[in-house]
Amino acid sequence: MPELRKDPVVGRWVIISTERGKRPSDWAFEPHSKRGGFCPFCPGNEDKTPPEIIAVRDGQSAPNAPGWLVRVIPNKFPALQIEGELDRRGEGLYDLMNGIGAHEVIVETPEHEKEFGDFEAEHIHQILTIYQSRILDLQNDLRFRYILIFKNYGSAAGASLEHSHSQLIATPILPKRVMEELTGAKSHYDLKERCIFCDIIHQELDTRRRVILQNEEYVAIAPFASRFPYETWILPIKHYSHFERMDSGQYRRLAAMMKEIFQKFHRVLDSPPYNFIIHSTPIQQPDAPDYHWHIEIIPKLSRIAGFEWGSGFYINPVPPEDAAFHLREE
Amino acid sequence: MPELRKDPVVGRWVIISTERGKRPSDWAFEPHSKRGGFCPFCPGNEDKTPPEIIAVRDGQSAPNAPGWLVRVIPNKFPALQIEGELDRRGEGLYDLMNGIGAHEVIVETPEHEKEFGDFEAEHIHQILTIYQSRILDLQNDLRFRYILIFKNYGSAAGASLEHSHSQLIATPILPKRVMEELTGAKSHYDLKERCIFCDIIHQELDTRRRVILQNEEYVAIAPFASRFPYETWILPIKHYSHFERMDSGQYRRLAAMMKEIFQKFHRVLDSPPYNFIIHSTPIQQPDAPDYHWHIEIIPKLSRIAGFEWGSGFYINPVPPEDAAFHLREE
Repeated sequence: MPELRKDPVVGRWVIISTERGKRPSDWAFEPHSKRGGFCPFCPGNEDKTPPEIIAVRDGQSAPNAPGWLVRVIPNKFPALQIEGELDRRGEGLYDLMNGIGAHEVIVETPEHEKEFGDFEAEHIHQILTIYQSRILDLQNDLRFRYILIFKNYGSAAGASLEHSHSQLIATPILPKRVMEELTGAKSHYDLKERCIFCDIIHQELDTRRRVILQNEEYVAIAPFASRFPYETWILPIKHYSHFERMDSGQYRRLAAMMKEIFQKFHRVLDSPPYNFIIHSTPIQQPDAPDYHWHIEIIPKLSRIAGFEWGSGFYINPVPPEDAAFHLREE
Repeated sequence: MPELRKDPVVGRWVIISTERGKRPSDWAFEPHSKRGGFCPFCPGNEDKTPPEIIAVRDGQSAPNAPGWLVRVIPNKFPALQIEGELDRRGEGLYDLMNGIGAHEVIVETPEHEKEFGDFEAEHIHQILTIYQSRILDLQNDLRFRYILIFKNYGSAAGASLEHSHSQLIATPILPKRVMEELTGAKSHYDLKERCIFCDIIHQELDTRRRVILQNEEYVAIAPFASRFPYETWILPIKHYSHFERMDSGQYRRLAAMMKEIFQKFHRVLDSPPYNFIIHSTPIQQPDAPDYHWHIEIIPKLSRIAGFEWGSGFYINPVPPEDAAFHLREE
């Protein structure tokens, strides 16, 4: 019998199939297309991208030349533009404003063939520190209300270049999904005076059925109302509201966990396309007792997700208990 | 300068690129995979599907034998099960219930190679009448709160069989997206005592910049805050809350408009994969002044939609004014 399960934060119901038997290796996702040819993110081609904003560099190398380990550049085809005024206005019953914002690319490695699961944990630590420093810089621009950090890996997950990179978009509005999470978490807090994510972590660590990994600082779980097969959330076990307010040791332990998760994806699921998104309290807000930052990782295993984004109605053929079991054991 | 536009019903902000110049023919979507081989939906293979629920038949043909024009069958691999009790329950802080519901397949044609744009308008009228009769039948089951009717066309849009078909899912809960629309429309009505969709139609028919097609009963528009390139909504011009409460003449005029829209998709966009979803007031509710049924059609032209379903944050590279222009003119 399938189950209907409700996400406790945003109230979304999903259908979870409980038929057992599908093995992780049964998934046939779209293969990564290897385009080959010229790569603007490879060392030596620094002049083919806009000038770098910041980079982690080995030794004495000069900006916009080889010698970098992680490199941040403005997106050459930005979704939002950094210069100008917001000019909020109406058009009859509609509301609009200028598309002001920042759109940056974090080139994660000079090595074209490597991806997140291949990096040393220390290298992931450097990437996370770069995310932090970009957020701390951009939050000084008071036009921005939110900073989304995300990664598309594989063309099926929306990556248009294969060289491993993540992206940052700073927006003058709160994205709808963020607002829903904040609202859902706040109403739980108003009722119980407890953070709902802390409650989730407490219950998951107690039953352990959906726990994938745990270290001294973080836990990775397959969420109770997973929308997608092998959906994985990484949360700090203690309550922290802002990703960018963690310290270096905390990023180091997050890096270790991320490496392990992506290695598991490689071993169990054969390196599927995926997206990850950092969910955090809006920049400029004080430390919040009701919202708990976390990372959501969504492998793109199946295209039987046709109408889901149009209807908000999800059908997940893999129970999160099974996903957690397979990822935990390998 | 890109624009940030807000959907007036659900409050979602999207980024609309306003760079002109991309021609409709510039889209390279995933080709439809022609699997060939055995098709369980073709005439003669009726015994390979569960027994039919209802069919439109020519002359005297017997159930579950050739001679049908439109055929409704239970989904062989249903997401929800028709038999059993809901058994709503908790698991710590989580809520769940049994996956009770109906999941049916509407095989739209006996001809394997044809799809919506190829059908005669009268044939589409028969399909719409079948949708209606299934809704009117299933709404008698008081366990159900909502009936979703949708179509996935093309494997990239989630269709697992290529023979043209649509699907019906009856659910014991209101899907989140439906609830958001109902809530957004209700708060507009509470404020203005007007239906927000009526207001949208009024403004669109006035400016005409986003109108694709109009007949005596319906209008097709590219919505102001389109999430996807060439997203198209079809709405009855007069206010009706329930799709299933229209009369035969009204379905006939809807059929004519749907045929024309899918022919335009064929001519302008080269038959892209797409999803359509009928959005209607929940079954069993009385005629509602605040919600206006409509059909949302989403061509799946681009995979640069990687993280959108995870973040609720949409970037649409085609302004709806351009989409409407290209579809209107051809």
